[in-house]
Formats: sequence, C-alpha cells, structure tokens
Amino acid sequence: MIKAGIIGSTGYAGAELVRLLLQHPQAEIVWYGSRSYVDQKYADIYRNMFDLVDEKCMNDDMDALAQKADVIFTATPQGLCASLVNEKILESSKIVDLSADFRLKNVSIYETWYKRTHEAPQYLPEAVYGLCEINRSKIASARIVANPGCYTTTSILTLYPLVAEGLIDPDTIIIDAKSGTSGAGRGTKLPNLFCEVNESIKPYGVATHRHTPEIEEQLSYAAGMNYMEGESVLINFTPHLVPMNRGILATCYASLRQGVDTAMIQSAYEKYYKEEYFIRLLGEGSFPETRWVEGSNFVDIGYTVDQRTNRVIAAGALDNLVKGAAGQAVQNMNILFGLPENTGLQLVPVFP
Amino acid sequence: MIKAGIIGSTGYAGAELVRLLLQHPQAEIVWYGSRSYVDQKYADIYRNMFDLVDEKCMNDDMDALAQKADVIFTATPQGLCASLVNEKILESSKIVDLSADFRLKNVSIYETWYKRTHEAPQYLPEAVYGLCEINRSKIASARIVANPGCYTTTSILTLYPLVAEGLIDPDTIIIDAKSGTSGAGRGTKLPNLFCEVNESIKPYGVATHRHTPEIEEQLSYAAGMNYMEGESVLINFTPHLVPMNRGILATCYASLRQGVDTAMIQSAYEKYYKEEYFIRLLGEGSFPETRWVEGSNFVDIGYTVDQRTNRVIAAGALDNLVKGAAGQAVQNMNILFGLPENTGLQLVPVFP
Amino acid sequence: MIKAGIIGSTGYAGAELVRLLLQHPQAEIVWYGSRSYVDQKYADIYRNMFDLVDEKCMNDDMDALAQKADVIFTATPQGLCASLVNEKILESSKIVDLSADFRLKNVSIYETWYKRTHEAPQYLPEAVYGLCEINRSKIASARIVANPGCYTTTSILTLYPLVAEGLIDPDTIIIDAKSGTSGAGRGTKLPNLFCEVNESIKPYGVATHRHTPEIEEQLSYAAGMNYMEGESVLINFTPHLVPMNRGILATCYASLRQGVDTAMIQSAYEKYYKEEYFIRLLGEGSFPETRWVEGSNFVDIGYTVDQRTNRVIAAGALDNLVKGAAGQAVQNMNILFGLPENTGLQLVPVFP
Amino acid sequence: MIKAGIIGSTGYAGAELVRLLLQHPQAEIVWYGSRSYVDQKYADIYRNMFDLVDEKCMNDDMDALAQKADVIFTATPQGLCASLVNEKILESSKIVDLSADFRLKNVSIYETWYKRTHEAPQYLPEAVYGLCEINRSKIASARIVANPGCYTTTSILTLYPLVAEGLIDPDTIIIDAKSGTSGAGRGTKLPNLFCEVNESIKPYGVATHRHTPEIEEQLSYAAGMNYMEGESVLINFTPHLVPMNRGILATCYASLRQGVDTAMIQSAYEKYYKEEYFIRLLGEGSFPETRWVEGSNFVDIGYTVDQRTNRVIAAGALDNLVKGAAGQAVQNMNILFGLPENTGLQLVPVFP
Repeated sequence: MIKAGIIGSTGYAGAELVRLLLQHPQAEIVWYGSRSYVDQKYADIYRNMFDLVDEKCMNDDMDALAQKADVIFTATPQGLCASLVNEKILESSKIVDLSADFRLKNVSIYETWYKRTHEAPQYLPEAVYGLCEINRSKIASARIVANPGCYTTTSILTLYPLVAEGLIDPDTIIIDAKSGTSGAGRGTKLPNLFCEVNESIKPYGVATHRHTPEIEEQLSYAAGMNYMEGESVLINFTPHLVPMNRGILATCYASLRQGVDTAMIQSAYEKYYKEEYFIRLLGEGSFPETRWVEGSNFVDIGYTVDQRTNRVIAAGALDNLVKGAAGQAVQNMNILFGLPENTGLQLVPVFP
Repeated sequence: MIKAGIIGSTGYAGAELVRLLLQHPQAEIVWYGSRSYVDQKYADIYRNMFDLVDEKCMNDDMDALAQKADVIFTATPQGLCASLVNEKILESSKIVDLSADFRLKNVSIYETWYKRTHEAPQYLPEAVYGLCEINRSKIASARIVANPGCYTTTSILTLYPLVAEGLIDPDTIIIDAKSGTSGAGRGTKLPNLFCEVNESIKPYGVATHRHTPEIEEQLSYAAGMNYMEGESVLINFTPHLVPMNRGILATCYASLRQGVDTAMIQSAYEKYYKEEYFIRLLGEGSFPETRWVEGSNFVDIGYTVDQRTNRVIAAGALDNLVKGAAGQAVQNMNILFGLPENTGLQLVPVFP
Repeated sequence: MIKAGIIGSTGYAGAELVRLLLQHPQAEIVWYGSRSYVDQKYADIYRNMFDLVDEKCMNDDMDALAQKADVIFTATPQGLCASLVNEKILESSKIVDLSADFRLKNVSIYETWYKRTHEAPQYLPEAVYGLCEINRSKIASARIVANPGCYTTTSILTLYPLVAEGLIDPDTIIIDAKSGTSGAGRGTKLPNLFCEVNESIKPYGVATHRHTPEIEEQLSYAAGMNYMEGESVLINFTPHLVPMNRGILATCYASLRQGVDTAMIQSAYEKYYKEEYFIRLLGEGSFPETRWVEGSNFVDIGYTVDQRTNRVIAAGALDNLVKGAAGQAVQNMNILFGLPENTGLQLVPVFP
Repeated sequence: MIKAGIIGSTGYAGAELVRLLLQHPQAEIVWYGSRSYVDQKYADIYRNMFDLVDEKCMNDDMDALAQKADVIFTATPQGLCASLVNEKILESSKIVDLSADFRLKNVSIYETWYKRTHEAPQYLPEAVYGLCEINRSKIASARIVANPGCYTTTSILTLYPLVAEGLIDPDTIIIDAKSGTSGAGRGTKLPNLFCEVNESIKPYGVATHRHTPEIEEQLSYAAGMNYMEGESVLINFTPHLVPMNRGILATCYASLRQGVDTAMIQSAYEKYYKEEYFIRLLGEGSFPETRWVEGSNFVDIGYTVDQRTNRVIAAGALDNLVKGAAGQAVQNMNILFGLPENTGLQLVPVFP
C-alpha cells in the first residue's frame, strides 16, 4: 500500500483526493493535513465522510509527514509547497503539488503573474509538469510533480495535437473557458456565496488569469519553440464562472494553416489520444458537455471545422476536481509508483 | 459473474443501475432494455457511457431476457412488470422490480391508489418487499423482490425503530418529504423543464401521493398491526419538488408516547441500525443534508426531541437514485446471490 | 415625497428596499446606510444599481438620519435598532424595523430565544407588529412598526383564519417551512457558499428557530388567548434551506376540530382575505409554488382536507425579500403615510 | 391606451410581454393568443398571473386581431408571422415580430440558415430591423418591425461601435455566447429537462447557429459594406447553454487595427451609447455579469485591451427575455407610437 499524506485536505481539491484515495485499492491516507481544522475530526468538516474517516486533521509539518508517507499531495494555496520543500523531504517522499509553484519553468514569469517571490526556484529544473498524457515518461522518475491547473489541463489537452502537428496558427488561439464554482475554492468570500453565483454567469481575470502562461508554455513546447529562450505562443484565455458545482468546458478557436482539413484534424487527435484511457474523442461535430464527465477522470473532446471562417472550434470538458485536480494527482501517483494509470480511477461519470 | 438484464435502462433509475453494475465486481450487464431506443447505441443516449458501454438498446422481451440473465431489473412505469412476469421467467431468473407492482400486499389498495387493475395479483403473496435492512432474510430466498420507492425507503427507515419500539403514537405521524428532480423521471413533461423547476419549490400529490399506502403498510407491520385484516397506521405524507438533481429528505414528526425520552429514542435507533453499513446515525440534534449522501447508498438519520411539544422530529436523507432506487436494487441482488450486501456499493458520497 | 432612510442598505433585504423604493412613486431614498461600506458608492456594491443610484453609503447615525427622513428602515441584525432608538428620533421620524427587536411583546421570551438583553424594552408596548393584513389599523398610528419575519409572515397568514375561526386544534400545528438562500443573508459564512447550498436540502434550527415564538404569539392572539398572561399556542416549526435565491413555502399541518369540513375552511379564508390585494387564495386542492410569486408582494395560499387523517394541510408561499421583508416594510410605510397599501407594490411576479 | 395583441403569449417571451405590458402605463392587452391553450384561462397556464389576468387564450387569427389591436406582437416560431401577414392587417395594425421572419434582408440567406421557404418575401424590403439604439429613426415609421434575436442584440450592441469606427478587423471577430435556459423556449424537449440542463454547460449549434447571419448582416452595415451585393463580415459565433433561467453574456474577441488604443475604444463606446438609457457602459476592465441586469431592459458592456495579443475583449450582458425579446419589443412599440422609449421599461434589475 502506498502511504499518502495530504496537506490541505479540507479544501475542495483536497477533499476530492480523500474521496479518490479511499476508493483506491493500493493507497491509504496517513495524514489529513488542514491548518484551519487541526485536531478536529475530518468527518465533522466533511460529513460525507461520516463513518468512513475516523482521523483528525493534522498540521502542515511536511518534514514529519515525509517520514510517514511515500507521497505527499499539497492541495494548498500558491507558495506553501515551495516554502516547505527541502532535500530531506524529497529523499523520503515524492511530492505531487496541486498548487502552481512548480508549473512554470521560468521563475520570472511565475513572479510576474503570481505577484510573489518564488521560495524554491532551485527545484524548478527537476520538477516535472504532471500532464500525464503528455509527460508520463518524465513523471515516472520525478521527485516533484507539478500537477496542472484545471483550466490548463482542459485547454492544453484540447489543443495539443493541433499545435504539435502544425495544423493551426498558434498565435490565433483564443480559449473561452467556463468553470463550475468549486474551482473557486472553499474560501468564505462574498463572490462565492450562493446568491451571488446562482442565476448568473460572468467573465473574470480577463487577460490576466494566471493559467494563461501555463497554457502558453506547454503549447510552446508542442509547437517546438525554444520557450526558455523567449519564444512563446501568445493566446487569449478568458475564464467564466458558471452556476454549477463541478465541470470545466474550454471552447477553443484557432485559424487553420493552409490546406488543413477535417480529416487531418481527426488524424491528429487520434495519433495522440487514441490509446488514452482518460481521453474520449467524440469526433467531428460532436461537442462535450460537462454533465457527461462529472465525477470521473475523463476528458471529452470534440471539434468542428468552420470553412466559412477557416477556423477550427474545438472544445474539451472535464471535472475540475477530478482530471482537473485530484484525479490527475492520483494518476500521477500511479505513474510514480508504477501502477496502471487508471488504478482506482475507473470511475463511471455520475449523471444526472 | 451474475448476469443482469435491465428493462427500462434509459430512465434515470435504469441508467443509475448501469452505472452501479459497471462498477460491480461480480456482475455484468447482458441486456440494456429500452423500448424507446431499440437498436440505438446506449452510449448515444447516455453520453457519460461513451467508451464504457458498446451495446445497443434492446426491447422488453422478458421471456428472451430471462434465458440470458440471472437477474432482471425492471426500472419501468407501473404495470409493465406485472404484465410480463410468468412462471417460466421466474424459473430461470430472479426479478427485482423497481416499479410499484409488487410493493403493496393488498391488491385493492394498489388498485385504489394507482387507479389501474393489477395484472399479476397471484404473485403478490410471494413477492418480498425489498427494504434490505428490515427484510433481508426473506429477500434471500425470494423470486420477486419489490424494490421500495425512494420516498418510502427514506420515510420507513427513519421511523421504523420508533414505531417498532412503541415510542411514538403512529397516528400522529406526519412526513414532509423533499425530493430532487430526477425522482420525476426522464419524461418530457412541462413541469420537469429546467425553467419550471429551477428557483422554485412546490408541494404536490398532497394527501394523494402513491407512496402513502406503502409507508403505512410497512409501519403497520412495525407496529405489530394485522394489516391484511384492515388494521393500519394512517399518516400524512407530503412530497415536495426541490431544484436539485438528486436527494431525498424526509422530515418526520410524531408525538411521543408517555415517558419516552431522548435516550430511549437513541437506543431504538442503535438497536436496529448500529450494525448496518448503509445507515449512518448522526445522533441527537444532528440532522442529515442530502449533499452528504449524494452518489452513495447511505441513509443518514438524525433527530431531536422537542420537549415543549412532546414530539420527536426525525429526518432521513438518501440519494433517490441510489438507496432510493438502483443502489437498493443492487443491494437486493447481492442478498439474492449470497454476496456481502455492500459488494459494489462502497461508494464514497460525492461532494460538492 | 416621503423621505426614506435605510440603515443596512447593503444586505439583501436592504437592497430589495432600495429596488422597491426606487420604483415607488411617492418615496425617495435620502440615506443609504451601510456600516461596512461607508463612503463607497452604493452602485459599486450592488452593480444592478449602476446608473440608477449615484449616492455613497452612509454610517448608521440614526439621530442625524432622523433629521432628514420621514421614515427609517432598519434592515440590520438583531439589537441594532433597539440600541439606537430614542425619543428624539421618534419625534421626527417613523421607524420600520426589519429586525426582530420589537416583534415579541414579552421581553423575557425575546431574551430567551435571541440570547441577548433587550436594550429598549420601554418601547415594546407601543411597537406594533407590522403584519399589514391583520394589524393595519394599529399600524396607521404607530411610531415603531416591527416588520415581521419572512417565515412568520408566511406561516401566520396561512394559519390565521383557521385558528381565529376555531377550525383547527392549535396545539396540533406543525409548520414545515422551506426558504431560498437569500434568507440567510449576505454574510460570508461557509454554509452560504454556492457549493455548500447547491444540490442539497437541509433542515436547520430544528425546535430552536427564533421565528417560533413569533408565530406562537400571533397565533395565540388569533386564538383569543391571554398571551401576556402565559397562555400560548405551542407549535413545531422546522425551517429548511433550499438551493434557490428567493422564496418561502410553509407547509402547515393541523387536526380539524370536530365537524369541520372543506367548505368551512374555504369560508374562513374568504372571510379574512377575499378583499386583500396581496393575498391570493388558490382554493381547495391547489397549492402554491414559490416561482409564481417571485419578485412580487403576493402571498399565495392553498389547502386540502385529508379526511383519512382528519387534518388540513395548508400551504403559503411568498418572496422572502418582498412580502417577507422589504415589500411588507414598504406596505407598512404606505399605511403609516396614508397611501393606498399597494402603492409602488403592484409588481407582477417574474417568471421564469 | 395602445391596444396590444400577442400571438404566442404562452411561450416564455410571450409571457414576458404580458408581464411588461401589464405594468405599462399606456398599453393594454386585448388578445392573449395561444394556439395550444385556446379557451383556457391564461392564469391557469401562468399562475403568476393569478388575480391579475382574467382573460382566456385566443387562437392566432391575425386578421380578427388586427381589427382590435393597434399593435400585434408575434412571439411565435419562425414562419408563422410571414404566413399570416397581409396588407389588410398592416393597414390597421403595426406588427412587432419576435421571430426571425423579417430580420434578414436577403431571402436566400434566410432560406439557407432556416431551411424553410420564406412565405412573405415581399415585405422584407420595408421591414425594419428593430435594434432600437441603432435604427430608431427608421423604426418610427415602420409597419413591420423585426425584433432582433437575443444573442444578436447582445453581440451587435457590444461590437457595433468598434466596427463602425473601424477600430477592429471585423474578420477576426469571435463571439462566444452563453445563455440561460429560457432562451430554449417552453417546448417539452428532453434537452430542456431540469436534470439535463442543471449542473452542466455545453456548446451547441457550433458554426451553424441561425443568429450568425443576423449578426453578420448588421455588423456589415456598421462596417459600411455593401451587404446586399455580397460583401459581408464573417464571424464565428458559438452559443452555450447555462444552467440558469435568464441572461445572456456575449464574450467577443477581435484584433485591433493598427494604432488603436484603449482611449479610442472608450471614445467609440461613448460616442454611440453615452446618451442611451438602456446601455450601461461599465468602462475599461469592468465586465458585465448577467445577475446585474436580470428582469430589466439594460445592456451592460465592458471591455479590456490585451496588449500582449493586440486584441480587444469586450462583453455584453442582458436579460434574454427583456432586452433580448419582450423588453425590446415594447421599446419598439414605444418608438412606433411616439412614446418616450423607456415608458413602462424603467425596471430596476432584480437581485438576487
């Protein structure tokens, strides 16, 4: 059994990790970290865990945790993981960081978009971006896995084959994304109140959302650009808040390179994803809906080519708490420990 | 492997059966019945099953199905199961009927409340009411299991110990129940449209809802009454439609018999349910919320005693599609085939 | 023009007062009080008021406000109005208090249920309970109007004629109420977050909710009891939180006195409400739904008699922010200033 | 008093017309047309109108209606208005058509996108596109006003000044739109069921939605193109279904022409909209949210310039049933009859 510790287990992503790990046949949770609820019963915070979890919440002493755990999940705000990680911890435990600390290779881009100093830049070179379908071979031997953001997982997976195969002009990419409210976290902030979210949709972080450089970096690699030398795809990314609990939909637009047709788009998707368990290719003209992936680790992708405008419109959908956070984190754990990737993740989507 | 066939697999309860059986380690689905969609791919109707189910929908030829299946689930409107069942079928297959056809022992009460003639009254005596926690020994050897209604499962389980132990006056029972909209089925009816349900709550079927006699019959047994001779508890049951997908909450009121106190209530609940995997006793003063059971087979029960009015207020919550329908059906299947009751049903509730 | 000041104008009830008064032909708002947002533009807090309200938020200096206003609305937490009111204020301005401070005549009952000391008990005798349809003649000459709670308005109006006419046994009254989430206010508390409320229903404050004594007091008056001498109806009142913005539904149960039939129930309702603009009698067998009153000051009432159990089930529905708070406050203002009661309140319900 | 008749009064747009006209000081409804409910009481179909509307539903005899009405609103599916209109009707009554029949000047484009033959192409030349803020002078003398679609009103108003002033390259326009579910109408179709819509977001009609040519035509006029000779802006328009009742948000992307900066964008918006009552310019960096316009006739518009990509992202929000349908229809009626445009439309948005 893999011994897993969670720092930040009472946020929504952390709680989803608990749900998934409880159902994982080869993992057990040894540390329910939650600074806000130390010594309180976990099941008193998340009553869905009544009778299922007896443990109390622990602090975020990562050094102590590393002695008990084979893998540490940090489902915490930016900065915490970078401030705690050290060589001793890494000698005894793997880290899957669900925050943004190790996602961006370029520390100055991190500091520009996140408006904070990076406290452990020395680990950036070795950290592996944990987008499993793209980076699985590197993940297998990593000590630190930077689990991708929810918007980024959706956006990158939807566009990756088209960029990698050179079918679209990457500088025409526009991503209009929509997220359920659990993506905003469990913080008690006015904009997250039921009556503020319900019966409304809004854009936010327009032209400034922090997932933008993360998408740009990965798509730049796909495009074969020398990203660390300053070459980069530049995109527009606009997130929207939707009155639902879970789900992300990314609607992506890009101009086709000359001569590109539907068959080439289809081939590109199949080349990269045909064998992927968690990616479901809906085919041309069939678009994803978040309800069909809820509760599962699937990413559904569909597209159409608009010949009038010579653009492709491609869309991806996933559950932001599963493939967009905890599910992908467990998938990364499976890779790190040599298990089949879908171990404990063969979750049938829950509908309605 | 238990071979299972589903008639009515494209209704919400039928689709939930598919979800649960796909994740069941000792069952496989051999028949996706759906009169409305014969020959269409099941995954085209329920896109959450894309890549997971390849089969096409079949008709409702129960005779043919019985030759292939060890157990038949009928997740259909009232009347269908009774119109199809026969001795030959019962010789080769068990039936778990999710409709009301075999729930009420008294055919005239069925015909009064359901306003239809019963087409197979000869099977009423042997059919077993499939409320697992109460009737499991009888279920084990049944040929026909009448899977309880969603409101009834919640209501009966909440009140059973109090009635059985004589702690409350059964004729003072009032059940005010609230249900998510999946309980109304997938029929394309005006009252089920999003804009008609959203942002509203309404009572319906006041004093006439068909789950009333089902609750009365089972509570009469609990009270030791000679129900078939006309003795019966009489209750008020009022269902309400709530703008959410899943979940039932039954808030129950009853006057305490003289001398009854909180400790006696608590003891009664523990006596009946302490060992039950699927019943979670929250204890005095702690009330269930539907969000904590969603996606799982749990029933959460809480209560309080109001000394000012000498009444107990007890409430139960469950997921109407799981413990209120498909989950309990699978639990019945497990009993019928001698498996541990929670096989394939150790589902952690999904929140948020 | 009536000059109106609002203390607590940035809570949901306060904001609804703003909406209603802006559309009132004979009132203008002279004070947008909001302790939390002093000097901020009101329309920056409530962006629906962009271009409609230019004013900034003011503090809660009721003395200064009284010099400018003919009527002061206090849409604040319990205790604030009682702590500020004084003779000088009352000489220059009427007060419509939307908090509970002056609703309960018996100060000890207030202090028991609200767990706080009453700071202005000397005004309790003269304060008038502002349930317009019942108390309008007393309201007309009051200095302090205690605007009723949302649950209480619904519950009392639904039951008043039945109690006043002696048709039901008041000690058998059970009120099972359901409310939209705006009733919980705009406080940034965890239980009010979108993901905590959405897709769930829960009871709360079972047997302890503060609206209980308010309902009991008014129904005691209806029953002709000597309430101040200790006679009182005792009821069960159970509120539930529903995932919707607005709306209250109160489902009420009571045993009929001997010989009472449907016609007598109908007559009682017509006797009290036939001429009431804001009360819509749906008639026997027709039940209210909150969607049909949203945005308006209407109360819809329906009922049925269950002969099997000899009980009446009656239900009332209203918009908790309108007739349950701000609308009734404006209706009280209209009475205080001799205007037709529905001035500015002829709002057609908004559906869907 | 303007006598108004409504054909299609029991759809959501028709019902909203009823709500608005009931509150209009200079209009009265003389005909509640509804083919599906002839002879049934209107208030039995829309219970919010209980006690407010006594009339029964009428058929769609537009000839008879024209004799009684000064203005006829057709809130019906495509084709009906065109199939009924004739010279005699137009001699006695104005027509405001809420369907698409007279929106597109080019009949072949209509027939291509709507896949039906136009039955009254002879009226296309005189029909005026009823986007009030753009076309009010032409509307004033029209006999037939083609009331714009909901998506189109939002999209065109958001982009019009930028195109008209030549600030953006119109062939780079991408509109990603999101709508509440009332936009899908009151038809009893499976995709409109509560459980199918709730907890999900989906794109639909990708690259094929019928509002596309309507937007293109109007933006072509703005760009000074000779549209009837075949010149046209070509855009991408992608609608999405959002789990809420009302509201449309259009997020629009376009590349800036060389040398265009934020100040020029701001000036363009002010030039066209500064004096418009119903358009609220939020300014740079401030984005609209549908909750702030709900129930009102306002359009809120905000934008930002992304210098990294040299694009403007502009967004507009409105209530699809008000400014997107019935409100704009009433605004058109006001223009037709020489009333101030906001007569009966000074509705304060309802929040929450």
